[in-house]
This record gives sequence, structure tokens and C-alpha cells, in this order.
Amino acid sequence: MEINGVKIDNTFAEAFPAWVSSVIVTAATKELAYSSAVEATGFGTSVIACPAEAGIDQYVPPQRTPDGRPGYGILIVHPSKKKLKEQLIERIAECVLTAPTTAAFNGITDCEEKLPMKLHFFGDGYEYQTKVGDRSVWAIPLMGGDFLTEEEIGVVKGVAGGNFFVMGDSTMSALVGAQAAVAAIDEVCGVITSFPGGIVGSGSKVGSKKYKFMNASTNEQYCPSLKGKVPDSKIPDGINGVFEIVIDGVSEAAVAEAMAAGIRAACMVKGVKFISAGNYGGTLGPFKFELHKIL
Amino acid sequence: MEINGVKIDNTFAEAFPAWVSSVIVTAATKELAYSSAVEATGFGTSVIACPAEAGIDQYVPPQRTPDGRPGYGILIVHPSKKKLKEQLIERIAECVLTAPTTAAFNGITDCEEKLPMKLHFFGDGYEYQTKVGDRSVWAIPLMGGDFLTEEEIGVVKGVAGGNFFVMGDSTMSALVGAQAAVAAIDEVCGVITSFPGGIVGSGSKVGSKKYKFMNASTNEQYCPSLKGKVPDSKIPDGINGVFEIVIDGVSEAAVAEAMAAGIRAACMVKGVKFISAGNYGGTLGPFKFELHKIL
Amino acid sequence: MEINGVKIDNTFAEAFPAWVSSVIVTAATKELAYSSAVEATGFGTSVIACPAEAGIDQYVPPQRTPDGRPGYGILIVHPSKKKLKEQLIERIAECVLTAPTTAAFNGITDCEEKLPMKLHFFGDGYEYQTKVGDRSVWAIPLMGGDFLTEEEIGVVKGVAGGNFFVMGDSTMSALVGAQAAVAAIDEVCGVITSFPGGIVGSGSKVGSKKYKFMNASTNEQYCPSLKGKVPDSKIPDGINGVFEIVIDGVSEAAVAEAMAAGIRAACMVKGVKFISAGNYGGTLGPFKFELHKIL
Amino acid sequence: MEINGVKIDNTFAEAFPAWVSSVIVTAATKELAYSSAVEATGFGTSVIACPAEAGIDQYVPPQRTPDGRPGYGILIVHPSKKKLKEQLIERIAECVLTAPTTAAFNGITDCEEKLPMKLHFFGDGYEYQTKVGDRSVWAIPLMGGDFLTEEEIGVVKGVAGGNFFVMGDSTMSALVGAQAAVAAIDEVCGVITSFPGGIVGSGSKVGSKKYKFMNASTNEQYCPSLKGKVPDSKIPDGINGVFEIVIDGVSEAAVAEAMAAGIRAACMVKGVKFISAGNYGGTLGPFKFELHKIL
Repeated sequence: MEINGVKIDNTFAEAFPAWVSSVIVTAATKELAYSSAVEATGFGTSVIACPAEAGIDQYVPPQRTPDGRPGYGILIVHPSKKKLKEQLIERIAECVLTAPTTAAFNGITDCEEKLPMKLHFFGDGYEYQTKVGDRSVWAIPLMGGDFLTEEEIGVVKGVAGGNFFVMGDSTMSALVGAQAAVAAIDEVCGVITSFPGGIVGSGSKVGSKKYKFMNASTNEQYCPSLKGKVPDSKIPDGINGVFEIVIDGVSEAAVAEAMAAGIRAACMVKGVKFISAGNYGGTLGPFKFELHKIL
Repeated sequence: MEINGVKIDNTFAEAFPAWVSSVIVTAATKELAYSSAVEATGFGTSVIACPAEAGIDQYVPPQRTPDGRPGYGILIVHPSKKKLKEQLIERIAECVLTAPTTAAFNGITDCEEKLPMKLHFFGDGYEYQTKVGDRSVWAIPLMGGDFLTEEEIGVVKGVAGGNFFVMGDSTMSALVGAQAAVAAIDEVCGVITSFPGGIVGSGSKVGSKKYKFMNASTNEQYCPSLKGKVPDSKIPDGINGVFEIVIDGVSEAAVAEAMAAGIRAACMVKGVKFISAGNYGGTLGPFKFELHKIL
Repeated sequence: MEINGVKIDNTFAEAFPAWVSSVIVTAATKELAYSSAVEATGFGTSVIACPAEAGIDQYVPPQRTPDGRPGYGILIVHPSKKKLKEQLIERIAECVLTAPTTAAFNGITDCEEKLPMKLHFFGDGYEYQTKVGDRSVWAIPLMGGDFLTEEEIGVVKGVAGGNFFVMGDSTMSALVGAQAAVAAIDEVCGVITSFPGGIVGSGSKVGSKKYKFMNASTNEQYCPSLKGKVPDSKIPDGINGVFEIVIDGVSEAAVAEAMAAGIRAACMVKGVKFISAGNYGGTLGPFKFELHKIL
Repeated sequence: MEINGVKIDNTFAEAFPAWVSSVIVTAATKELAYSSAVEATGFGTSVIACPAEAGIDQYVPPQRTPDGRPGYGILIVHPSKKKLKEQLIERIAECVLTAPTTAAFNGITDCEEKLPMKLHFFGDGYEYQTKVGDRSVWAIPLMGGDFLTEEEIGVVKGVAGGNFFVMGDSTMSALVGAQAAVAAIDEVCGVITSFPGGIVGSGSKVGSKKYKFMNASTNEQYCPSLKGKVPDSKIPDGINGVFEIVIDGVSEAAVAEAMAAGIRAACMVKGVKFISAGNYGGTLGPFKFELHKIL
């Protein structure tokens, strides 16, 4: 299979279930909402060593937020529902409640379960309940004004680890291809690419051959500088750059849509030559995104 | 004391010692370095519930980075040296090593002590030692190319919690005043303002009067909406908006310079009426930044 | 009429017909497309002394551009069709063709008339015709690769000068209100706010009372600092800040939608107190946007 | 000559004299100053068809602006002093005076000559003279507050057209190399790169071989897609991407410093292979920047 002359590998991305919550962070201006959303989703690339996976899903204009102000929908993702709840509380309390002029609303109303945040105790008795449209919120008096927040945040069982590899004739061709992919994925609702700039520069494998105390190490099969030095390199001829896009989302459909949009956009970049995906032979994760099928 | 007609309160900011490390994150482009620096310093407003306090100190142009590429100097701050070391490792491993085309260098070379990061084990035996200028670095083969990193990161005993309040005739006057302050502080080397957009919308007090299980709660004395409702409001007449700037830095001098620059810039904004600062009567922190003295 | 407690003046905005073209500027990355779009629409606030009015209408993701790359739709506006054609050629030739990795496509396909750009002569005989989807384009060999461009750009009779005033209890309240308005208008398709940041700080009147050689001068009736100094100030009591939003668009409906969305968003900002609009008594422009009607 | 393994061509960039003015645009916030500076310098890539060449020289923090607010220093450049004066007036009047909360100051105080802007007539008699520090300014009452501006703007005889080519093994290697170069040049005071993102994708030659009515056309010798199709291609073996950086500056020294910094930064990008520069054999311009000499 080819798109715009770029070969699409006949393989699949393997992904895993994870709990996903969404919060809509609004503020007086788009820039203030963005600053808060970025802070609340930082240090959140991978649960290998970050306390959660997190990112901005989408900009939500004043026309579509609960309080008529500009906002950003963020996703917070964790395989453990208990950890997700802790992270929701800490990230909203520390990075949204503290930010100037913000408010926080539940982003997934169509859900079976909600996680309680209990932020209102910060009001020390001065807090009170009120309404924003038909949503019940707490108002907590602060220096910068009253902080409005819903305290029950919906959670759904989503997908973590959707992925594909962008390979190019040079490092920078693959990089720009990955950037184009992220631009496309940004438009898909219900997904995030939690790594810096949405791009992973470091593929990893489970465990380590040499250092037994490591639970993850570089995936030497995909390192251009090790081609010819490792026996089982998976880098095709003519490829000198590889980047990975990793996608978390609220559903299998959202992740599939994001993968398809991202791959198509990457294929429009000059020098991108090959698209593949990462899996562990299908033995681990229940989700299999076959590239030829989703495209 | 007045600056541009704005009254400067005769008080002081109380601050505390904390350990501070700096890492210079470089990448192929300024934007890529920025993405990584932002991710590595996210979820890092306050150690009350974040695993560290962190932020971008300054842009470092190609002319001045160890590897001649554009970079950002970030600070990571924690009262506990052990926790700081953990956070250095996790944030650089998860948010810089994983990012496309990045490298990481020690940002404080003039220090008595260095913290080891030991990232090179990720290379699973394919890593090797090399030089960038006169700096010893590890090269770890990755998909996106070889990641270069110093593994010993300098640490110094710095200052956390330098602060001042910007008060205005309206919420938005105080907000814009705080934004101008942050623009000035951004130019001072060796400091960060770790809250979203550099601004705190939620002043807090230690503990809570009503909820004994809370170790911090809203500082009702500084809430404009509670003026007239609490007996001891500290908001002067004519003030309707209050924001706080909180500064961490590598030294007392750097924090004092940042406070002075920030206060002066805030005073240039129309509607800013009063500058004050937060302290606990001087009983807790060893650092006292008297506003009239530093200006 | 009130929205969120903000009084909406019972008046109308008066606007005028103008020719409008749209170009979709794509590039390898979103950032490159943005840089080109910004340059191509700069120095384009008002035809009073700029060669055209111009701005970015919207981001167009890879999923929706003709060539599957990220892009921006820009509008170029002029009362004279001849001048508009000149400006289209000059701005696309100098700011898009010259930019790295860009392409240019007609943004209004549903139109009665198209303006020719004839950029292909720049190819000096090396240019050739090809297809992007079902669009006929010229390919012009350049250093950075072949520049693809449609040469016939649709033009429609649109509307220039749709407007409203955001008034607040302080300058900064009105400013932030105007910023919120721009965030909402940005989401409306087919409109631009051509002034810096989308906001006008300088209301003007036709001609000048004192300097006969001036064809426009400050509108003293709307200057907060002249309230009480001019006999006919139109600034209500309690208002200390006024900013104007000026909107050009492809149709009366688009401008009305933008005005309504912008006004509603401004009314959500604390300290915004009054919304009005500018007109010349209805004697000049054929378009009248009555605030109470469009909201 | 080589830098980081990249060959530096033994040639020179040829450049021409031009008049240069600098204006410092300040505003209440950094973002507002930036919006105004961007608008004022837009549609300003090349005087071939733009009314001026213009760009942002540098950010000037509150600590260093005349009025203690954040600002940007912009350069406006034209071979004709008369045209430069016209452009100064139009760009400042339309893009700075009109912008929210801005002020405008002369950026080159050490000059032999100043150009008058006469913006104060816009005040219709309500304007008045005042001081900002030791600078005489006019205050013009506007909706958004009083606009402060110096009316005499210094002009110096500078340099236009300093340049170099970044060539890489792929289009994207050359592109990222050019982006790194721009990041370095941005740090040099007194220079601009006026094209979108600072990068030129379209090298041109004077006149046209085929179309006699064109006064500039593509430089086929530097088009990768024409290599092998034109007899005199100047693209070395192994090169598939070429971008040009064009620099205007206040002095020969500033342009030389910018060229050197930009070339060095480009050479740090993987896949960049060759650096050259454009000249017309030295018959036209009085300024010759020999690459081996300036580095």
C-alpha cells in the first residue's frame, strides 16, 4: 500500500486500555486558558516515569464552552483509575485553580462514571454552590476572583499507546513529516499526543538486554545510527531518520481516526519514505490498529 | 514610596531555602527546544502538590549553548535534595531524552555539588562517551539520532517563594500589571515564575480555619469578593483585583533583582494602584525581601 | 438589552461594500504556513493608508486543504477590484511564493468572478502545469522545491467595517473584553479583524475640525481622557476604557455572526460594562447591523 | 573551509546600501507589543514589490525601553529615503497608533539625521507635548488611552541584501538548517531577516531569459528540481535542498556578525552539507561579505 508514493507497512499498532478524563479549562483570554492547560498537562509524556499521561485535546472557542469564555479541553490518562483521580485533583488544584481567571468543567458528560475532585474545601467555608448554565459548580473565592469548578469529572475507558513510525531519507525529513502528522492529529477530537511537540524521538523496548535493573531501554532495531551494527535492524534501505507518534484517546475510533489523519499528512512531506507501527506481536494489548485497514 | 504613582507597601516578602538545578535543553530548532523545556517543567507550580517547582529560566541562543544549537535553560527546584535528584532524572528522561533532536547540559557549572542522572543505561550497551566542546557527555542511540547528555547536574542552595502582590482598580488592571511584571522577570537570569503564565490567582494561607484536614486554604484576607465580608481584609479601598507573582531563583540577589524589575514593570500599567508582598511575620523563612530596599 | 449584566446599546454598526478574495496558504508545517500567512496579511489594517485590508481567516488542517498539508485561509479586502487584484499578486508573489515550502490555492470556489495572478512567469520557462486533486495549478521550480499555485483567485462582493465598541470600568477590562471578542470571532468562517491583535485602540472620525488637510482624525467623543473636556462625549458614566473591533467579511451574514459571537464573548469578561457600535447616522453605508437584532 | 564537517564555499555575498530606521514599539503587555510590531513589518519582504523591507530586530524588555513597558525594536528599510519616510509614517500610523495600548519611540538615537512623522495632527488639536524620561513625545488622545510617540525617527545608511545559502542532503535538512540560522541571527542586534520565518525559498535572478517583461525570475541554477536539466546548475552533488537567508542591517558589521552566527548555527544541523552565498560577480554592490573572512 502507498500514499503519495510513501510505502505503508503491512503491520499494526498495538495499544492498551487506560482510563481517560477530560477537563475544559476556560479563562478570560485564550492565552490564559492555554497557559493553564499547558501547565496542567506538563510532565505527562508516559506513565513509565511520569505521574500521568496528559495533553491538550483541543481549543474550545467561547461559542462552545460552558461559561462562554475561551477554553482548552485537556485529557488526563492513566491505566489506574485511582491514580487518575489523584492526578486529576493535583493537576487541577495546582495548575488550574492557581492560574489567573480560570474555571474548570467536566469534558466528558456522556460517561458511566465520574471522579470527585473535592476542590471546594480550599474555600475554607467561603465557598458556595452556584450554576453555570445547567451545570452545578462550586465558587471558591480567590485573590483573582471566584474560581468556578465542577467537582465531578467523567471518566471513560479509553486507549493508550496508539502509534506509528514516520521514516524519511534524512532525520529532518522524518521530523517534518512527524510535525505534519501532529498538525493533522490536533484536529481530531478526543485524542492527545503526549510527548513534546507530539513527537517521540526515543523508541523503547521492554526491559534491557544488558542492564537487568532497567525496565525499558532504547529499541536498537529502530536506531539509524545502529543500522549495520545490530543484526536485526528494522530500518529499511535509504532511511536515515525515524520518529514515532504515540496517541492516547477516549475511544478506539478516535485513535484510529487520529492515526489515519496523521499518517496521511506525514506522507505529504517530501523525503518521507516509509510508515510503520510498533507492536509486541499482538500478545499484550487488546487493541490492534492495522495500518492498511484504518487508512 | 511610590513608583509612577503606584503605592509600594512598606512590607517584605518572606522566602525559604530550596535546592535548585539548571539544565540547558537544546534541539535542532528553537521551537523543538521550547516544546521539550515546557514539557519538562510542567505540572511544577508548587511543591504543595506538584512533585517539583519548575520553569523556563531563559532562552539560550545558538551562540551561547554548549553545542551551538538553540536552547532553553530550565530550573528545577525542591526543598529536598533527594527529591530534586529524582525529579531531575524523571523529567529529563521522560521529557527531554524522549523529545525529537534534543540534548541536555548542566546549566550551573559554578557549583560545589553535582547530582548524577545516570541516563546512559537507557542505551542498553550501545551508548558511548564523547565530548561536546570540553564537556564530557554520553551519546545514547535513539530513533531520532544520538541523544547527547551530561550526567552530572550542578545543584545550588537557592531561594523559593520570593513574591509580591499586584493590586489594581479592576481585576483586569491587576492581571495586565502582573503580565507586565512577568515580562520583566523573564529577562532576569537565574529565576523562574513557576505558575501558569507566571501569575498566581489564588493566594493561600497555611492550614484552614474550618477544614482541619486541609494544610492550605484560600487567603480570605486578599480576596476582593470577600472584602466587607471578612473582618480583617487586607485589600485597600479602590482595589478590585489582586494577583501574586511567586519567584524561585538560584540566589537571593537574583530573586531581589527579579522582584524589583517585576514591580517596576507592573507600576507602568494603567489601573495598577498598589504593590504589596506576602509574609508570615518573618517567623518562618530566613529570607526577607523588603520592598522599599530592593527597589 | 443586557447580556450577562452588560448593557447593549440600541444602535447599529454601519458598514460598506468591498471586494474580498481568499487564498489558502499551505506549507510543510503549520508554523511555516502561519509565517507566510502573517507576512502576506501584514501592513493591512485599513485602506486609509495601507494598500489593502488583510488578515488570517482560519487555520485549515491537512484534512481539509487541497494538497493535504496544513494551511491558513487569508482574506484580502479592497473597495477597488483593480487594487485588490494588484495586492493579491504582490502579496502572494512576495510573501507566499518566496516563503519556504508553501503553496497557494483559491479559497472561494463558489464565486462568479476570478482574478488572474499570472505568477508562473517567474518560472522563466521552467514552469509547467499540473493537478492537485481536481485543481489546475502551475508548478514553478524554486530553490526550496517546486511552488504550486492556482492562478485564478475567486472574488466576491463582501462587507468592510462591521464593528462594535467594548467599554469597561477600566482600560484593561475593556482590553481583555476585546481580546475575548477576538477569540470568538476567530472561530467564525469568512471574516477577519485586520487590526493588530484584532483590536482597534484609535477610533477615528472623517476629516478633522482643526487640521483641514487631514482626512481622518481622532474621534474625541470616544476618548476616555477627553471626557469632561469635550461637550459631546459619548462615554457613559463609569466607563474608563474603550476599544473597537472592526470586522471585514465575505458576506453580511458572516459579519453579523462574527459581531454577535464577539459581543457575547466580551460580555463574559469582568469589568466590561457597555457595548455600542459606530455609525454615521446611516447616511453612508448600505449595511446596517443593529445590535439588538443580530444578538 | 569546514565547520562541523560542513563545507563553506569560498565566495562572497554581495549587498547594497539602503536607508534604515528603527522604531521601538511598546505596549501594556509583550503580546500586544508583538502584535503591533508584526503588523507594522508585514508585507515587507523585498522592495521588488513590497513598499518596504521590514522586520522585528529584537525584543526589548521593560528594563530597557523608554517607558518601562515591554517592547519590540523594528527596522524599516528602503533604498530611497523619501520612500522610507512615507513608509515610516504609514506603518506607524496604521499599525502602531491604531493598536491597543501602544507607544512608539525612535530606536536609533546615535544618527546624523532624523525623519519627521507628524502623527500628532491625528489628535485634532487635543494632542499635547510631554516627556517620557528625557524624550519629547506627543500624546494623542485615543479611545484606548493616550498614544505617546516621538515624531523624529533616526535614519542611518545601512546594508540590504546580506545573504547566504544553506544546502542539505534533503529539502528538510536545508530547511531546519535555515531555521537554526534564523534563531542565531535573531540574537544579533541591528539586523532583520525580512522574509517569512526569516527564510527565502525562492532564489531569483535579475530579469528573465524568456519573458522580457519580467524584471526578476527564478534562479534556475539553484533549483534542485532543475539539476541535470539546466547546463549550469550550481547545486553540488548530494544536495537536494537549498534555502537562502537574506539579511538587512544598520551596518556592515551587524550584517557580518549575523551572517557568521547564522552560518555557524546552520552547520550544527544534521544533513546540512554546504554553505554558499549569492553575488553578481561583485560588479553591482559595494558590500562584499567573504564567507571565509567573516567566519
